[in-house]
Amino acid sequence: MYGVLYFCRDIMPTISQKGRLMPSSPIRKLAPYAERAKKNGIHVYHLNIGQPDIETPHQFWDAIKNIDRKVLEYSPSDGFEEIKKRYARFFQTRYGLTNLLPEDLLVTTGGSEALMFTLFSILDSDDEIIIPEPLYANYIGFSKSGNINVRPIPTQFENGFALPSIDEFEKVINEKTKAILICNPNNPTGYAYSDSELHRLKEIVLKHNLFLISDEVYRDFIYADNNEYTSIFSFPEIEQNAIIVDSLSKRFSACGARIGMVATKNKEVLQTVLKFAQQRLSPPTVEQLGAIAMFDVEENYFTKVNIEYRKRRDTLVEGMNAIEGVKCHVPGGAFYCIVQLPVKDTDAFCQWMLSDFNYENETVMMAPASGFYTSEEKGKNEVRVAYVLNCNDLKKAIKCLEEGLKVYNSL
Amino acid sequence: MYGVLYFCRDIMPTISQKGRLMPSSPIRKLAPYAERAKKNGIHVYHLNIGQPDIETPHQFWDAIKNIDRKVLEYSPSDGFEEIKKRYARFFQTRYGLTNLLPEDLLVTTGGSEALMFTLFSILDSDDEIIIPEPLYANYIGFSKSGNINVRPIPTQFENGFALPSIDEFEKVINEKTKAILICNPNNPTGYAYSDSELHRLKEIVLKHNLFLISDEVYRDFIYADNNEYTSIFSFPEIEQNAIIVDSLSKRFSACGARIGMVATKNKEVLQTVLKFAQQRLSPPTVEQLGAIAMFDVEENYFTKVNIEYRKRRDTLVEGMNAIEGVKCHVPGGAFYCIVQLPVKDTDAFCQWMLSDFNYENETVMMAPASGFYTSEEKGKNEVRVAYVLNCNDLKKAIKCLEEGLKVYNSL
Repeated sequence: MYGVLYFCRDIMPTISQKGRLMPSSPIRKLAPYAERAKKNGIHVYHLNIGQPDIETPHQFWDAIKNIDRKVLEYSPSDGFEEIKKRYARFFQTRYGLTNLLPEDLLVTTGGSEALMFTLFSILDSDDEIIIPEPLYANYIGFSKSGNINVRPIPTQFENGFALPSIDEFEKVINEKTKAILICNPNNPTGYAYSDSELHRLKEIVLKHNLFLISDEVYRDFIYADNNEYTSIFSFPEIEQNAIIVDSLSKRFSACGARIGMVATKNKEVLQTVLKFAQQRLSPPTVEQLGAIAMFDVEENYFTKVNIEYRKRRDTLVEGMNAIEGVKCHVPGGAFYCIVQLPVKDTDAFCQWMLSDFNYENETVMMAPASGFYTSEEKGKNEVRVAYVLNCNDLKKAIKCLEEGLKVYNSL
Repeated sequence: MYGVLYFCRDIMPTISQKGRLMPSSPIRKLAPYAERAKKNGIHVYHLNIGQPDIETPHQFWDAIKNIDRKVLEYSPSDGFEEIKKRYARFFQTRYGLTNLLPEDLLVTTGGSEALMFTLFSILDSDDEIIIPEPLYANYIGFSKSGNINVRPIPTQFENGFALPSIDEFEKVINEKTKAILICNPNNPTGYAYSDSELHRLKEIVLKHNLFLISDEVYRDFIYADNNEYTSIFSFPEIEQNAIIVDSLSKRFSACGARIGMVATKNKEVLQTVLKFAQQRLSPPTVEQLGAIAMFDVEENYFTKVNIEYRKRRDTLVEGMNAIEGVKCHVPGGAFYCIVQLPVKDTDAFCQWMLSDFNYENETVMMAPASGFYTSEEKGKNEVRVAYVLNCNDLKKAIKCLEEGLKVYNSL
């Protein structure tokens, strides 16, 4: 009996439809090919993932070395009071958002959890959320987890992925629409929304009574000369509609900390997010204690990091556009851009770069852009590139890509 | 215009039905009353939450003090290879589950996330999961997050909450039923399932082709003289049905670490859980590094902790049963038990104990048991008690409860 049951697959319990249809991460799905390349002695330049190489502020490491506790206890579900205070003060002093108070925010296990709990709190099954496309792939996943439908609004490579007109939004708004989600500056396009675009969004959410979620985890990475940035929290008219999703991962090069937050003046939303937060008990304790100290970082940390990323951006854009058939725009923020390559299918090409190619024992890992679209046909000739390496390595990675394209297109 | 929009609530965007109906945690919802009592100088004995006072193994603290990294990077989505190896080896050597290999498990941000991803991976909207009741309150929350219906199987105070007969299960199994979830030993009842009960579950899942999820986070807390414990991983016949949910929180008194795991020999399930894990990027890095070292704890750590909890259990049970009108069983495992109190509504009573009562400037916080049932009418005269305090404090807490009951019932 044991053998029969064990080998007869059709009487095995089956996974969920949701699980089956859930896309694999476009950022991580090629990881096994990269591992194999590395085992074969090939150096892989990781342009696929937003894992910066910048040092985490020493305050984090110092703080965790000095923890004097005997029991590693839960923190409150919304985070330690001290981190909430430090978080709010940071937004007040550095971003001028004096209306963001400790009681308006709740600490989460990374920006990912912040967004998931927000979606669960405001959207039911079959409700719709509008997101400019291409979009951060995990937005699709979090939405699917809650059976929420993503309504993409196409943005165009040609104009650097600027926000579409109000008309384009109104075409897809219906009685199921509950929210608009933007990532500003944008992952994967690097587009930084202008003040007038934010005003446009404000008008739409007021007119149609929608929530406006702004994922602002890259807001320290703005490359306009005056560092101008408009947060959705700067419009008092929409303070009941506005929800900020944040994370310390990119700001402090502390991706592994998994500390983020949700901020909103809408008490009903925050109370609801808290119920989801209570279910998972608490965010990690040690990482919160390190994070509290990290807010003490010297102001010039941000200036230095910003200058470094601007150099990397310029190196990347110049290098990419110098390759025949390759096109990319100058992104205004974050550390990503969408690059058009002279190939038909970047999924196949990116895999090939890892499994079948090397140039002087080196290769490049990129994220095929199809995973950043809701429809599989889109973005087939695009990749998302994260410029998280120093300029020297970036140049080598670009050279490697150039050689790879030559070989691939002559196969 | 601003004033009108801002103050007119009926044109504000509204939260989700799911969020509105989501119950608050019975363990944490009275926290504001406890805070107020503390601010008034009253000492609160926390019997409401499974936050042990046992010291976390020093290996954890030593390891994080010795971290020599500059960049706090993401870990792999399924956890560092080293923690997966240590986790598997621990299960092999300590529990004798030699079939549990590193590639059969995936590291999660606590047992909470392990369970949520498991549910999302195997159950769709409106699918049903059978759970013996009373049940860990957050099982309801995680299920609601995925629009999954919980089908409770009532267990009885009178027989210590033993597993019901196969008949009882078959009464509620239908074409929507996908899984049975047990917590063994049980939170909130403290019941430890016998070998024959586990065999019964095995027969049911085989006959009806269901998944069997076993939340084994309390498995080091078994008080039978021979420490006998049957894991669902010890039945090869159901290796494609069996999914273990685990956490380091209770085993190592490391609740704040938020490190847990999912283990299953079913590759399709594990691959699907990985897709959800990739969305949230990774479990916390520093806490994983501490956890790796924590597996080196001396074997007598567990013996000492077990002896301590057995003493506490005996102190609690004896003390409670000595109070007029109070009843509780001797729990076989975990560090919880359901206690019947001579009051009509423990929600009101537990709140009153915090807001209106103190005995010699002390009071007790307990979790009203209604939150551990799917129907609001059940468990109204019960509380869940966590015996996570030393025997001395437990005795004082019990005395305090006794005095509280006297006053309350004479009001």
